[in-house]
Amino acid sequence: MIDLRSDTVTKPTKEMLEAMMRAKVGDDVFREDTTVNLLEEHIAKMFNKDMALFFPSGTMANQTAIKLHTQPGDQIICDKYSHIFNYESGGVSFNSGVSCNLLDVNNGFFTAKDVENAINPSAYYYSKTSLVEIENTANRRGGSCWDFNEIKKIKAVCTKNNLGFHLDGARLWNALVAKKETTEQYGEVFDTISVCLSKGLGCPIGSVLVGDAKIMENAIRVRKIFGGNMRQAGYLAAAGIYALNNHVERLAQDHEKAKNIADVLSKLSIIKSVEPTETNIVIFELNAGVSENEFVKKLAAKNIHIISMGGNKLRMVTHLDYTDAMHEKVLLTLNKMFS
Amino acid sequence: MIDLRSDTVTKPTKEMLEAMMRAKVGDDVFREDTTVNLLEEHIAKMFNKDMALFFPSGTMANQTAIKLHTQPGDQIICDKYSHIFNYESGGVSFNSGVSCNLLDVNNGFFTAKDVENAINPSAYYYSKTSLVEIENTANRRGGSCWDFNEIKKIKAVCTKNNLGFHLDGARLWNALVAKKETTEQYGEVFDTISVCLSKGLGCPIGSVLVGDAKIMENAIRVRKIFGGNMRQAGYLAAAGIYALNNHVERLAQDHEKAKNIADVLSKLSIIKSVEPTETNIVIFELNAGVSENEFVKKLAAKNIHIISMGGNKLRMVTHLDYTDAMHEKVLLTLNKMFS
Amino acid sequence: MIDLRSDTVTKPTKEMLEAMMRAKVGDDVFREDTTVNLLEEHIAKMFNKDMALFFPSGTMANQTAIKLHTQPGDQIICDKYSHIFNYESGGVSFNSGVSCNLLDVNNGFFTAKDVENAINPSAYYYSKTSLVEIENTANRRGGSCWDFNEIKKIKAVCTKNNLGFHLDGARLWNALVAKKETTEQYGEVFDTISVCLSKGLGCPIGSVLVGDAKIMENAIRVRKIFGGNMRQAGYLAAAGIYALNNHVERLAQDHEKAKNIADVLSKLSIIKSVEPTETNIVIFELNAGVSENEFVKKLAAKNIHIISMGGNKLRMVTHLDYTDAMHEKVLLTLNKMFS
Amino acid sequence: MIDLRSDTVTKPTKEMLEAMMRAKVGDDVFREDTTVNLLEEHIAKMFNKDMALFFPSGTMANQTAIKLHTQPGDQIICDKYSHIFNYESGGVSFNSGVSCNLLDVNNGFFTAKDVENAINPSAYYYSKTSLVEIENTANRRGGSCWDFNEIKKIKAVCTKNNLGFHLDGARLWNALVAKKETTEQYGEVFDTISVCLSKGLGCPIGSVLVGDAKIMENAIRVRKIFGGNMRQAGYLAAAGIYALNNHVERLAQDHEKAKNIADVLSKLSIIKSVEPTETNIVIFELNAGVSENEFVKKLAAKNIHIISMGGNKLRMVTHLDYTDAMHEKVLLTLNKMFS
Repeated sequence: MIDLRSDTVTKPTKEMLEAMMRAKVGDDVFREDTTVNLLEEHIAKMFNKDMALFFPSGTMANQTAIKLHTQPGDQIICDKYSHIFNYESGGVSFNSGVSCNLLDVNNGFFTAKDVENAINPSAYYYSKTSLVEIENTANRRGGSCWDFNEIKKIKAVCTKNNLGFHLDGARLWNALVAKKETTEQYGEVFDTISVCLSKGLGCPIGSVLVGDAKIMENAIRVRKIFGGNMRQAGYLAAAGIYALNNHVERLAQDHEKAKNIADVLSKLSIIKSVEPTETNIVIFELNAGVSENEFVKKLAAKNIHIISMGGNKLRMVTHLDYTDAMHEKVLLTLNKMFS
Repeated sequence: MIDLRSDTVTKPTKEMLEAMMRAKVGDDVFREDTTVNLLEEHIAKMFNKDMALFFPSGTMANQTAIKLHTQPGDQIICDKYSHIFNYESGGVSFNSGVSCNLLDVNNGFFTAKDVENAINPSAYYYSKTSLVEIENTANRRGGSCWDFNEIKKIKAVCTKNNLGFHLDGARLWNALVAKKETTEQYGEVFDTISVCLSKGLGCPIGSVLVGDAKIMENAIRVRKIFGGNMRQAGYLAAAGIYALNNHVERLAQDHEKAKNIADVLSKLSIIKSVEPTETNIVIFELNAGVSENEFVKKLAAKNIHIISMGGNKLRMVTHLDYTDAMHEKVLLTLNKMFS
Repeated sequence: MIDLRSDTVTKPTKEMLEAMMRAKVGDDVFREDTTVNLLEEHIAKMFNKDMALFFPSGTMANQTAIKLHTQPGDQIICDKYSHIFNYESGGVSFNSGVSCNLLDVNNGFFTAKDVENAINPSAYYYSKTSLVEIENTANRRGGSCWDFNEIKKIKAVCTKNNLGFHLDGARLWNALVAKKETTEQYGEVFDTISVCLSKGLGCPIGSVLVGDAKIMENAIRVRKIFGGNMRQAGYLAAAGIYALNNHVERLAQDHEKAKNIADVLSKLSIIKSVEPTETNIVIFELNAGVSENEFVKKLAAKNIHIISMGGNKLRMVTHLDYTDAMHEKVLLTLNKMFS
Repeated sequence: MIDLRSDTVTKPTKEMLEAMMRAKVGDDVFREDTTVNLLEEHIAKMFNKDMALFFPSGTMANQTAIKLHTQPGDQIICDKYSHIFNYESGGVSFNSGVSCNLLDVNNGFFTAKDVENAINPSAYYYSKTSLVEIENTANRRGGSCWDFNEIKKIKAVCTKNNLGFHLDGARLWNALVAKKETTEQYGEVFDTISVCLSKGLGCPIGSVLVGDAKIMENAIRVRKIFGGNMRQAGYLAAAGIYALNNHVERLAQDHEKAKNIADVLSKLSIIKSVEPTETNIVIFELNAGVSENEFVKKLAAKNIHIISMGGNKLRMVTHLDYTDAMHEKVLLTLNKMFS
């Protein structure tokens, strides 16, 4: 099976699994898991932040960050297609009692000016704006990367207006590799950042939230409230440490493959357009009249699995378990079947 | 002072005040206030619903309805400029833990088809859509009225998809008079309706939520949780009964005056456009370059007070305390000052 | 009907009603109601605090205070029989997401030492203690009054441990009169105080929350979220101003009458015990075997209405509408029927 | 290090670790992890329930169950020392907006009659009672076991009063082994049961919530909201399957060792009393004047680690990693040091 539905489907490599099984563990509820502690210190250092905390999922890392930044009734400024609003089961309102001011401009990459305009007046009958959130890369925006200069300008607006600034870095590693950016520069600009060890890095489980002490000091309490406090989590943390050492640079290969796929797709007559492919996600739109469903089924019959995004758009995601051989077959199949 | 900022500024007439003074009252926490009970029965009957409940504000009536229809994490479909999202301090997320799927189509009057498209898929990572809310008249849409045929089509979508259907009737009386519609026809279509006794009807305080027994049976509990359970509220209810008997039909006069104002404004050279004026709200946009702030100040200097809506738009609202003499002066002043 | 069920059943006197109808009012959502503003300033001054805010109920004043002092997940230290835990529909958990550490010592009048022992350790798996709440007089403790010296000691514990200190002053006026204490001394010790204008003072509707600017600055926002923001509330505020000027000192008469009733009850053979009667509430327990229900019914047959508290205990409350003539009849009836 | 602080400190055996390494995994967000599915089916079958769901912690399994059974504002009946109230950071109020009616009778083992008396009246100003929760074995009650006959009587009260019935089975396996009871009999009585795979069973991470389809159908949504939805969780589930097959019956050895320790302790002169030791937890109280802190330190100096419970009580917990050799040393040390 060639699985291009998501980069979340990867399984640990033999080496990662061995690293997991060798892990020194302890009870993390007592904060005695050596490997978890090591991973947290490592990531805090990478981003030049005071504190990092390990989570069972990126959703929980994001939900915790939102709780740390907001009070019930507050409002978050974020993209219309942000993961936190669309794919976390309404968690921002359930867990934190907050609403989202969804911006739908500039293909998701809103500007500092857009943020400024989106801040509510201070009168008591408006929701209080308290947080700006961005996602890099932006999943529903085709894995595209933010312009770091604009991020810095948004930061200035946040500082001026006393707003928190959170980065959903579910695929931040892809952005760093694609744009040759550093963790330190992101650590300098954001108050909190969630990074995923699954997806591109290939770990089975885990995300990490990193931030300054002042905001992070309650993170462990919020994680406990959600039930995210695990016992011997070092097995999972060990995979994370392995991945950070071995699986970051190789993301460039996933990006290359995604570009190859995009190139082939853009030449197919049944495809209306392919979104710019900056990292490991290819989103493309079929011509009107071509059935999304049929397209997916036809590929599935060849054992190639992709996902529908609605609106006649489809998504293919390259990753660690997508081999060169699979890639060759995918390109060949696409060319043969649809041209 | 000629106050056109809002129809909420009205004060009771002499007759209304006398009706208030004569009210038979009791402790409504024990449900022993005769006048409150009378008002609730009267409104329930008007809408042909099982139950009505008196509230200290329209905000609380709406917030209670939303809680009755939803579970934390759920999602409401409503207009981008809806009062519940924009002017209730983020209450839907604070009180009910729900989010809003804000539609921004057709100048606020979304269609049944729009609703159908806005319902989230059932997969567990999406927020669960459970309520559709509309506002009639729509304040931020210039006091415009919904097309009742479209409302019925939306109801069909709600029924099919098991969604609640709530009407924010803060200015429903204006819609009924303007469109010659009846309370019964609204009662038939909506599960819950909040109606305001202040605003057009001229009462000092109070809104009523009306609905079927099944959904309303918890309303008194939710009202208590918010702290909306008052003691001898009959003084306020008496004003409501008086207003329903004496102040509904006269809304036509407010509408007529609003149209007169709109006519004058549409001829002024400094005004770019005037939104269609169906009821008692006139919203108009100044030409680019004309200062919103200065316009408001110039009128204030003549003792005429209006309100800014942002985006170079201004609002004037006619009401019970806006007399014929005031009206004459306003028309004259507008003509003199700006033409 | 002689109604001794509660002091909440009082209706405005003729003079109070006239004061109400003469009130200068305005739209309090715009903060333009002169009489509301006057009442708020008056009460703030009485307690020597920065700010006061008018509420439609004592429940909402308390719920708002709790929200201002706590974060979701926090814990409140209060008496087992506190109104906020028992009679506000679970509001502290619904509205603020907090729990109560209920103390059941010393007949409700816990000590500073008890508070100190009840503070949770700081470890992240404990709920964070953030507020101490007391009720004076304590309704379910027979209208008894707190010892102000102990209150001051509790304040010291709060200060040392960074806990808020809120007073539910639903019947504070009774305590002040009974103990010859002052509003200023309470204002000095508590961060926030809710006082009721209904109950002993005889107003139809309304409570006021008073506190320092730092904590109160968000009170108006929280009140809006609950829907407690009313329009021309000056009619209600006028009753409050009248009552503060005319109905405070007379509470001594209610206390005197309550003591008379307690004296008579304590001599009746079917009564096991009468709780010490410090203010306007008389709580007494029937002998085992004597039916609570029958006792209530027998009095009701004589048109005297009282209330059951459970556990074979009954409650009688004296108030403004309980006249000397009624009092004579009640004493006579008790003596005749049960001795 | 001999660690008797908790049975949560166990690390996987070599065999368990090998089972983990061999696990077939997939993306559990897509519900494609074979091993997770297998574990869930296995446990559902054991308890004769429709559905089971894997969680990263027992706290999350409990918090999810509470959310499934309650509405915001509701009340839970449970023991004063219940884990859900005391050690989950105030989560029941944060996550579900509910309060606890804490019973403090019969050393934690309240009766059906106690439950009946604790149900609130239906009047709207009381919190609505909707759930009864018990913990078996009861950690803070010395690992004691419930009497199953009383559980059945409580169930009858729940059924009659339309209350949910949840079991916190963090150490249910210990109770089953100690009392020779079956999973089926518990499945028949409770609506939902959380069981822990860590603690006595020795897995590194994981709990499972099991229940009937009607109540469990939203469990996956609530788990997602909390962020408990993991990716390749099969590695953790594999440990669970291994433990269920190999580590249940051996709990009898832990119980035996705990009894040995209790016997020795009960003969020491500095110890006031030892609580009845039914399973793997020994709680004992030092004589007045003997320092809790010093006792813990003295043992620590011999490399034996135990935990303080407050109130001059101490706790020792036996488990999978507590070997026969360690046991011998502990008994010897206790005898030598303190007799």
